[in-house]
Amino acid sequence: MRAGGLHAAHATVCYRENFLETARNIFQWREMFRRHCDLIMPGLSAEDVFAARDSGRTAIFFGAQNCSAAEGDPRMISVLHFTGARFMQLTYNRKTAFAGGCLDKTDGGVSEAGRAAIWEMNRLGMVLDLSHIGERSFFEAIKISRRPPAVTHANPKFWLDIPRNLSDSALRALSEAGGMLGLSLYPHHLRGGSKCALRSFCEMTARLAEITGAENIGIGSDLCRGRPDTVLAWMREGKHWKKKMEKPPAFPPQPKWFRSAADFGNLAEGLAAAGFNAKECEGILGENWLRFFIKSFPPQR
Amino acid sequence: MRAGGLHAAHATVCYRENFLETARNIFQWREMFRRHCDLIMPGLSAEDVFAARDSGRTAIFFGAQNCSAAEGDPRMISVLHFTGARFMQLTYNRKTAFAGGCLDKTDGGVSEAGRAAIWEMNRLGMVLDLSHIGERSFFEAIKISRRPPAVTHANPKFWLDIPRNLSDSALRALSEAGGMLGLSLYPHHLRGGSKCALRSFCEMTARLAEITGAENIGIGSDLCRGRPDTVLAWMREGKHWKKKMEKPPAFPPQPKWFRSAADFGNLAEGLAAAGFNAKECEGILGENWLRFFIKSFPPQR
Repeated sequence: MRAGGLHAAHATVCYRENFLETARNIFQWREMFRRHCDLIMPGLSAEDVFAARDSGRTAIFFGAQNCSAAEGDPRMISVLHFTGARFMQLTYNRKTAFAGGCLDKTDGGVSEAGRAAIWEMNRLGMVLDLSHIGERSFFEAIKISRRPPAVTHANPKFWLDIPRNLSDSALRALSEAGGMLGLSLYPHHLRGGSKCALRSFCEMTARLAEITGAENIGIGSDLCRGRPDTVLAWMREGKHWKKKMEKPPAFPPQPKWFRSAADFGNLAEGLAAAGFNAKECEGILGENWLRFFIKSFPPQR
Repeated sequence: MRAGGLHAAHATVCYRENFLETARNIFQWREMFRRHCDLIMPGLSAEDVFAARDSGRTAIFFGAQNCSAAEGDPRMISVLHFTGARFMQLTYNRKTAFAGGCLDKTDGGVSEAGRAAIWEMNRLGMVLDLSHIGERSFFEAIKISRRPPAVTHANPKFWLDIPRNLSDSALRALSEAGGMLGLSLYPHHLRGGSKCALRSFCEMTARLAEITGAENIGIGSDLCRGRPDTVLAWMREGKHWKKKMEKPPAFPPQPKWFRSAADFGNLAEGLAAAGFNAKECEGILGENWLRFFIKSFPPQR
């Protein structure tokens, strides 16, 4: 991250963990903040990004990719916020007490508890993350939320039509709500997978900007380094994974132009080649998220 | 508290609340810290007492009078510590997953989960509070704990023989472990109740000092002001209170020489009259707790 010039990064602290397991993930990060205080620091507000920049470090913002940490109780969200979480998804692929998931056959929409959860997140200054959600729930959640949501890591369906990517109408609704889309660099979200060309990714970004405006686009790399393949089955299906019946999934190799956060320079070159001007490139590579952080993290009554 | 010159106070955030209810009590305090930042501030370490003194404020240290906030899981204690709790009892009168209570007919001692809880508290720098515990559990807990415990609010049985007060052998074990006793000013813990004389209280303190040493004595007033009587039934028996069968309890009037924290000056006069020198008086009225805070709150591996 230092090599890539990143002053802020989002770290996942919950896929399907309950409250206590999520808190312990966060506490492990706190230990890392102590041990590596020359490299990283906690990210709780937009100001922390400036502090990280001024001290040559990266501010780590915690996000939950699921609401399992809230254990079905919207009141738990304030405790998660207090422990440091700044993003939360209502679902991770599958339905929860709050909403429907993008891999569910049916999506019943946002529940009453989910509505309360969204308003609690709005109040606290925790970003509603609509990645991995079902499409019906997506549109309902955007209407319910009183503050701009984000899709932290996904790509447009017009480029690769998979359930995790966003339709044109979803993209439009997101940007009309002032929301951000973080472009994913996870091979399963890329056209051509691991062999996706940088040029294809950046041309997709240019077409996307015509729908959403360049100012609502950022990077949400979905990068997962140094973790064993076994964790992937658990991420996808948790305890429901039928170990003996199916071949467990493996992490695909990253495209060679984005192997790690050190490769952000390649994205800058690619975006410039696709026609973005310097200001737009800076926006997509960080300034847009920073502006979003400034408006999203202060609590509201 | 300002009128009484208190730079630190213990506030109860849990009697029988579960984790979430306790967290919400703590968050209500955080709101009060914001609203009354000229009077109070959070107390998380001994240094905060000096900061409070230097800014003319009172540092509020959170304590749980029960382990219900941990919901039977010793791992939850780290989250409670993170939210600000610095004291925790294993029991509040009645048996819990961790130990036996002082009002139980039988006390089975400290459980394996209770042992893990004590060691987790030792590690974090959360004070093991042995108020309201059964006598067998009291002696077992003292043996298990690797750091000095406290009895934050109780008096000696030799002065008033009730289950909540401590026998001579308990007093001896506590001081031998380097533990503190906070003397209670709750009328039900005083000889003569609301009519207890200051002189009787201070003479008890002098006799106590012969057993424990004056350096292990502090004040733990158990003061409960401005709360309706109805809360008392809930404190004592929670949902088990037989509302229709018995007359609900009422808060007794405070002795007239200790109606509020503003009356600490009366204690100073009374202790001096009972033969304590100036240094001993200062110790009992605050310095002993401060020294205990200095050694008790830093985390240990």
